[in-house]
Amino acid sequence: MKKLRIFVDFTAPTDAMDELRRGTEGHTLMFPGKPAASVLEKAERDPQFVNAEVAFGQPDTEAIAEAPGLRWLHISSSGYTRYDTAAFRRLVAERGFIVSNSAHVYNEACAAHVLAFMLAQARTLPGALETRTGNGTAAWHGLRRSCGTLRGETALILGYGAIGRRLSELLRPFDMKVIGYRRQARGDEGVPVVTGSGLTAALGEADHVINVLPDSGETRGFFDRERFARMKRGAVFYNIGRGVTVDQTALLAALNSGAVGAAWLDVTDPEPLPERHALWTAPNCHITPHIAGGYAGESNALVRHFVENLHRFVRGEALSDRIM
Amino acid sequence: MKKLRIFVDFTAPTDAMDELRRGTEGHTLMFPGKPAASVLEKAERDPQFVNAEVAFGQPDTEAIAEAPGLRWLHISSSGYTRYDTAAFRRLVAERGFIVSNSAHVYNEACAAHVLAFMLAQARTLPGALETRTGNGTAAWHGLRRSCGTLRGETALILGYGAIGRRLSELLRPFDMKVIGYRRQARGDEGVPVVTGSGLTAALGEADHVINVLPDSGETRGFFDRERFARMKRGAVFYNIGRGVTVDQTALLAALNSGAVGAAWLDVTDPEPLPERHALWTAPNCHITPHIAGGYAGESNALVRHFVENLHRFVRGEALSDRIM
Repeated sequence: MKKLRIFVDFTAPTDAMDELRRGTEGHTLMFPGKPAASVLEKAERDPQFVNAEVAFGQPDTEAIAEAPGLRWLHISSSGYTRYDTAAFRRLVAERGFIVSNSAHVYNEACAAHVLAFMLAQARTLPGALETRTGNGTAAWHGLRRSCGTLRGETALILGYGAIGRRLSELLRPFDMKVIGYRRQARGDEGVPVVTGSGLTAALGEADHVINVLPDSGETRGFFDRERFARMKRGAVFYNIGRGVTVDQTALLAALNSGAVGAAWLDVTDPEPLPERHALWTAPNCHITPHIAGGYAGESNALVRHFVENLHRFVRGEALSDRIM
Repeated sequence: MKKLRIFVDFTAPTDAMDELRRGTEGHTLMFPGKPAASVLEKAERDPQFVNAEVAFGQPDTEAIAEAPGLRWLHISSSGYTRYDTAAFRRLVAERGFIVSNSAHVYNEACAAHVLAFMLAQARTLPGALETRTGNGTAAWHGLRRSCGTLRGETALILGYGAIGRRLSELLRPFDMKVIGYRRQARGDEGVPVVTGSGLTAALGEADHVINVLPDSGETRGFFDRERFARMKRGAVFYNIGRGVTVDQTALLAALNSGAVGAAWLDVTDPEPLPERHALWTAPNCHITPHIAGGYAGESNALVRHFVENLHRFVRGEALSDRIM
């Protein structure tokens, strides 16, 4: 087996890092002096990177451009904004290296997070967990009447990919209508998919609008005043994609007017929002701090996914979650 | 068609009552002077009841004993504690009248409510919706690590019936192990069912213990110190059955010691709990005010279910949700 020089610029608890060392035995691991604090920040450039043949983490695109021997980049997240540019794709094409991400590590948790949001909304949990109203009061009858079951409702999932597919599996027992939206339909989605201008009608039909869009040039501010206005009045908006895909001023206005019935956001721009940001206190706006993909054992799963791909790479097999 | 005297002692919004009047045209409706305030309270006795042939609501058992012409009682709830006694069953057997309840009206919402609880717990929503912690902090990593996905976990459903069956359908995509517990296994549950002393092992295996037990002589204080002690340490307890089936002092101790990891209660004893009751502030204890069965259109669904059963009754067909 050829010994590979693997540059690792992500941090994880000790047991996951031990698992990484065991799983990559026989290869050379290189660690940066100062790792990136989060997936949203740029790592500092490391002089060793120029020798990397494999990179695992979120390395800087300029560093990649200066590493002539790089054959495979495995991104330690599901999102890959930093790499989703024409310039980077050109570099990948010129150099012929492979790019994969960690989508499979996060699909399950992200889909569960969205369903948790949907059911918390349907069962009015934020209000119901606060109230101490008694059985039979007018407030109690009102609360019961504001509850739903999701059954028969319509969900539109934007950025329909691996997470959307898993979410639609979780929604199947609810007999919902699920519609996907993506740039190009591939025909294997298992749900009806709209593209381009087909979105307008779908926005008008959906009771639940679920935004899983990545951050790219095309998606910045995608949910603007116009698109919120196209939504069915009182429908619920969810975002577990990226905060920058939403015009937050437009969302705030839509929540204040009741055009959007509620918002459940796992991502915002920035994260966290400034302390006095109006979305913290907007009507029916519920925010979790970018944890949709999180779960116990997540770091170990991330390492395992990389190690399994490394074995495939060494054997010359197709990689899981290859994106370029 | 024979004209029936139908005594109705439940209240609902005007449109549902209108639907009831339309659906029972040709029959005589009798309404009490003062209806019961809630399913947990006894209605006042009404002198007209003695003439009832059909009763829809929650009439007093003594009133029923004094109504010689009663042929069918349709209970307007899923629970039927008041009627689940040896004396009442004897009366039913002697008189030969039919008893049905409204289980089908509430299954869907109750199952969705439990799944909302399970996912809110798995995704740590109560804490995550409160925090404003930033991406990459120690608190943030801790929060992500405390999240789960339900996948592969074990759920034990006590009082496994129509709600349990629907819940196990909703849980199917999560690849969970679902175990039912009931007095007698019927063989048609679709999940493994334990009875009697088989409960002990199941309590030790379950990550989620879901109490849907009705209130009856046998179930009062069912979840006592002993049974909470049998649960796997840190497992989560849910109650959407009846508050009296739980020894709340024992639950409180189990939450305080961490033996029970969290409790999600839609029912308590009494409802609501007194203002200074320790469960309001117990660690990881989350309480909704007996709304698990609630949903928009619930009263109309209740009426429709009764009216459909009335048609069956008139035609001499088997009733939906017949319980005696």
